[in-house]
Formats: sequence, structure tokens, C-alpha cells
Amino acid sequence: MPHITLNSSEPGIRGLLRYRPETAGPLSDLAEVLLRGPSTLTPGERELIAAYVSELNSCEYCSRSHGACAAALLPDGTDVVEQVRADASTAPVSAKLKALLAIASAVQQSGRNVTAELVAEAQATGATDLEIHDTVLIAALFCMFNRYVDGLGTVAPDDPASYAAGAQRLVLDGYTLNPS
Amino acid sequence: MPHITLNSSEPGIRGLLRYRPETAGPLSDLAEVLLRGPSTLTPGERELIAAYVSELNSCEYCSRSHGACAAALLPDGTDVVEQVRADASTAPVSAKLKALLAIASAVQQSGRNVTAELVAEAQATGATDLEIHDTVLIAALFCMFNRYVDGLGTVAPDDPASYAAGAQRLVLDGYTLNPS
Repeated sequence: MPHITLNSSEPGIRGLLRYRPETAGPLSDLAEVLLRGPSTLTPGERELIAAYVSELNSCEYCSRSHGACAAALLPDGTDVVEQVRADASTAPVSAKLKALLAIASAVQQSGRNVTAELVAEAQATGATDLEIHDTVLIAALFCMFNRYVDGLGTVAPDDPASYAAGAQRLVLDGYTLNPS
Repeated sequence: MPHITLNSSEPGIRGLLRYRPETAGPLSDLAEVLLRGPSTLTPGERELIAAYVSELNSCEYCSRSHGACAAALLPDGTDVVEQVRADASTAPVSAKLKALLAIASAVQQSGRNVTAELVAEAQATGATDLEIHDTVLIAALFCMFNRYVDGLGTVAPDDPASYAAGAQRLVLDGYTLNPS
């Protein structure tokens, strides 16, 4: 049960976005730019970073939601998501994405854990400055979302079908509220 | 030196906002709503939560920036900021703010550390559901900002006058970019 009285029974962040529309707007805009906006990282790669950080933060709702998005968007997505969850360093992703996941893992612990070496390793695989910037900010964004969702004790559904349906909506419509 | 090549020499988050205007907009809007928007928590109280979480995350730039804002906005602010930094549980703030700082401290570690007991203690001091919501989201927001600022290795000036000048701008103009 959530720690505060929400105005809907919607699970996870959805109930929080409905409760506080003033913050829902910029939160949704930020997710849209970072996860769906123009980028040399695919939406599937960016959802994988989001799911990975959420898993490291033990946030069930976000981990399952964004894991379902990554699974839907990436080739062999279900397998990739499972293997990243088990051990990102040996998962079947590109060397660049592996290096970016290593940066995301450092960010999850502390921004101060991102070393010049981790950044140089990503650059050696061809990662651009903008890709490194966006990886750091996506990882930091989910350190916020995970704390928001769990800090208010929101409900995470058990049923996998609920996450699959949510992912289908996010894949089709993105994150912007009331898109014009 | 920052981990990536920025397009200005501005310190801390200011250089990052200039580097990536697409994310700067929603990041600034979110800070404005949470730290300056209509609320039963004063801007000084909200800046104190931001400074406290940034201190717990050892983020020098954010801790000093928002500490300077809280010092400028709260009665006896410099003393209050110092005492919260030393030990929030004995600092000269209201029982309600002390309970909200305890929630913010839990969020800084993990959303899962916010217990029903911490929430009940805040409610017993008169904290409303919306104040608890905003405290959790402000604390989570700074877990993002701190990781963003430190994860990209941005520069924190040494000179206290730099933070005082930044605080003066934020107190006068708020966080919105290019306000109309």
C-alpha cells in the first residue's frame, strides 16, 4: 500500500504522475527526450540501461517495466535483458553498450565512481561524448525514478501481462503526456 | 576536468545544461516546480532538503550551491545549514522539517529505506501527504542531479563567493531557463 493516499489505484509511477500533475509534465518530458528523442543510441539500448539501473536499485516496478520495453525493442530482447540482469559484463551486447552499462553501474553507486578509465574504455569502443553524457543522465534519472516509486511505497503488480501491456503502450506512444 | 568536452567553461550543472539544451528544459522545469512552485514548505526548507541530500551524496558543487541558497532564504540560515550538515537530528529546525529530513536521508540510501514508521512520524508532526510526496521527490531529484554533476566530472569552484553569487541568482530568478 502506498505511504500516502493517492487519487487512483494505478501502480508504480503512474499513480504518482496522476497525483502530482505539476511534476508529471517535466518528468515525462525528460524521459521522452532521453529514452525516445533523437540519439545514436537506439530506444532499445536506452531502455536496457534504464532496466539495468533499476535492477541494481532493486526497484521491481521500474526494472520489470523497462525490462519489458527493452525486450520488445531489441533483437532477441528477452534473452538480452535476462543476460544483462545476470551479468552485464558477459551479456550478448556490443562492446560499446557493455562499456556504457559499466558507466551506468558506476553512476548507480555514486557519480564519483565514474572514473576517467571507464570513460576512456567507452570512448575506445567508439562511444561519443553525447552518448556518454546521455548514459550518465539516463542512469541518474533512474536513480531518481526508482527512489520516487519505492520511496512512496507504490504497488508493483505481480502479473507479467501488466508489464507487457505497459511496454506496448510505451513503445507505441512514448513518454509524453497527452501528446499533441 | 570534465570527462567529456563541454561547450563552455561553466562549472557544475551549469555547463551540462548549456551542453544539452534538450534535457536542460525539463530538468530546470522540474527544479522550479519542486523548489520554487506553490507549496506549504518554504523555498528555504526545500533548499535545505536539497543541500542535505547533496551533502549525503558528497556532491560538493550541489551541496555548496543549495547550502548557499538555504542560508540566504532561511532565518539564521548559515547556522541552520551548518548544524544540519553536522547532525540533522539535533539541528534547530521544526519537528516537521526534522522528520522530513529523516525521510530524505532514507531516500538518499534507497527508496526502499522509507518505512511506514518514518512516514507516520512525519505525519504526527503535521506533515501532509503532499509535503511527504515532495520531500521524497526532492531527495530523489538530487540523487539524480548529484550523479549527473559528479558522473561527468564537472568542476566545483573553490571560491565561496562563486556559490554566494549563484545563490543570489537562484533566489531572485529561480530555476526556469529564459523566464518569460
